[in-house]
Amino acid sequence: MGRVVVDVMPKPEILDPQGKAIAGALPRLGFTRFVNVRQGKRFELEVDGEVTDDVLAEAHEAAVTLLSNPVIENVVNVRAVTPAEIDPSATELIEPGE
Amino acid sequence: MGRVVVDVMPKPEILDPQGKAIAGALPRLGFTRFVNVRQGKRFELEVDGEVTDDVLAEAHEAAVTLLSNPVIENVVNVRAVTPAEIDPSATELIEPGE
Repeated sequence: MGRVVVDVMPKPEILDPQGKAIAGALPRLGFTRFVNVRQGKRFELEVDGEVTDDVLAEAHEAAVTLLSNPVIENVVNVRAVTPAEIDPSATELIEPGE
Repeated sequence: MGRVVVDVMPKPEILDPQGKAIAGALPRLGFTRFVNVRQGKRFELEVDGEVTDDVLAEAHEAAVTLLSNPVIENVVNVRAVTPAEIDPSATELIEPGE
């Protein structure tokens, strides 16, 4: 069972009200390091079997035709998922705050 | 100017109606390889200067307190952005379908 990740972000010239709202909320919660926030989407497409080049090509085609609006969004990533992103126990490793 | 990516996905046991809708639409558009789709969120947090371990720790703290709902979502990724994800010309490299 392979998995492909597609990342879609609003284009830089497009206003992102959700990102702006988050950027405004962060300092009120004590997070002062971040000067700007953008919010986009992440899709995980599951395939039977391996993630081959053919699968990635089809995922990219789907990304630009269905998963993103090319007028306001960029497809920034089409790639196979890494094991660390599937295995929840591996997620613990990226929790330096705990 | 550094950038941190935070990826948030619905927990596996949580129903994802948007993902289900996409999974239903894909075969109608000729994309037949994908057996399941989940939709989550991707945030890009911009910082002045380098992405240090301190920055990543603060980003993770923000991810679990503000950017995700821990009841229904998992933080699957907190990492520095790779140059290929910022430079739009690098995105061309991942367009095998064109």
